[in-house]
Amino acid sequence: EMAKLTQLLDNEAFRAYATYATIVLLKMMLMSPITAYFRITRKAFANPEDTASFGKGESAKKYLRTDQDVERVRRGHLNDLENIVPFIGIGLLYALSGPELSTALMHFRIFAGARIFHTLAYLIPLPQPCRGLSWAVGYAVTISMAYKVVKTALYL
Amino acid sequence: EMAKLTQLLDNEAFRAYATYATIVLLKMMLMSPITAYFRITRKAFANPEDTASFGKGESAKKYLRTDQDVERVRRGHLNDLENIVPFIGIGLLYALSGPELSTALMHFRIFAGARIFHTLAYLIPLPQPCRGLSWAVGYAVTISMAYKVVKTALYL
Amino acid sequence: EMAKLTQLLDNEAFRAYATYATIVLLKMMLMSPITAYFRITRKAFANPEDTASFGKGESAKKYLRTDQDVERVRRGHLNDLENIVPFIGIGLLYALSGPELSTALMHFRIFAGARIFHTLAYLIPLPQPCRGLSWAVGYAVTISMAYKVVKTALYL
Repeated sequence: EMAKLTQLLDNEAFRAYATYATIVLLKMMLMSPITAYFRITRKAFANPEDTASFGKGESAKKYLRTDQDVERVRRGHLNDLENIVPFIGIGLLYALSGPELSTALMHFRIFAGARIFHTLAYLIPLPQPCRGLSWAVGYAVTISMAYKVVKTALYL
Repeated sequence: EMAKLTQLLDNEAFRAYATYATIVLLKMMLMSPITAYFRITRKAFANPEDTASFGKGESAKKYLRTDQDVERVRRGHLNDLENIVPFIGIGLLYALSGPELSTALMHFRIFAGARIFHTLAYLIPLPQPCRGLSWAVGYAVTISMAYKVVKTALYL
Repeated sequence: EMAKLTQLLDNEAFRAYATYATIVLLKMMLMSPITAYFRITRKAFANPEDTASFGKGESAKKYLRTDQDVERVRRGHLNDLENIVPFIGIGLLYALSGPELSTALMHFRIFAGARIFHTLAYLIPLPQPCRGLSWAVGYAVTISMAYKVVKTALYL
């Protein structure tokens, strides 16, 4: 039955989903080392055990603080969770709903591009409405896929 | 093999999963525009670039603040992530585990209802234990599906 | 077509995915009651309606506060979301990409072990680099699965 399983990955729309889902999840995962980078360079930590290498007592305690750059990356990370989770779930069902390959590719490419641009707009940061628009584009793509899923699968 | 793929969506329990998973993910996505609505009406933003339209310097800086209503929506959004993510993952495996259609429908409907009620209880807000109970109902439904998945699929 | 559906769960690598995905999602869900436990024992709540049972007005208001232990659990919960979501999404595609059963089991077991250890390291807390290393191990496992998915499925 291994053949049966990999049939899913013989389907081009499903392969496209697998590729772009992996890309956006890896992009989201990238926020963790970026957060760590800013925590270390800005010396701004959340846990006492993380500052132990800076010495004991008051000398280390001062590094238990929030930092604007760290908080910015964390907000970007949370925004990824809020938007990439729906894409992963709805996108999977969309890929199984028998979309046209070209339509599916268009959805996945626009979503991935919008989220990558969103991260750049957040971290550089670019002036608004850059971040707002890139968020809206990804949001609209997910709604469009949800419409196709519900139209194909509706069973209440 | 497109036919093979859409066979998943020929199965009624899987179609029910697709429908309710999409509903709860769309409900979760709704928290983003609600957050934006409160940020704009309460003039409470997290990023300097978001307040640029209010002028420069100190006049815009005062809108970089937290607001009780904004924070309430954000807590509801995070609670959605914490509870809807397990539902999406475990629910998918549950739908593939060959449940009775009526049992599966009962699980999905109760979960969706509980989470919609949870959001209302959080945003209105309703007195406790409304929010706590609706959280617990969704939690119990997910545990029940997890039990079926592990019973069917267990391979350690 | 029920038979077709359950064929997915006839595949041992997919069954292993279903088992370990459910385990790590249940582990993540466990963070919610742990948060509730610390909120109640430390009397530190986020919503006015949660403190109503302590009386009205100022006597209840003092319990609307943050607490170090509560915040620690919440940070652990958010870290779970940031890392378990990619595992669920990429792991599903990995399980469908036809991996060797023994290789797949090794990935799933190490990830689950690393995340359980991460939670212990966060909550006890253990001195660094315990938490950092367990985070890195789970992260590396997910990257390794992503590599296999992209190698098998790439369709841009």
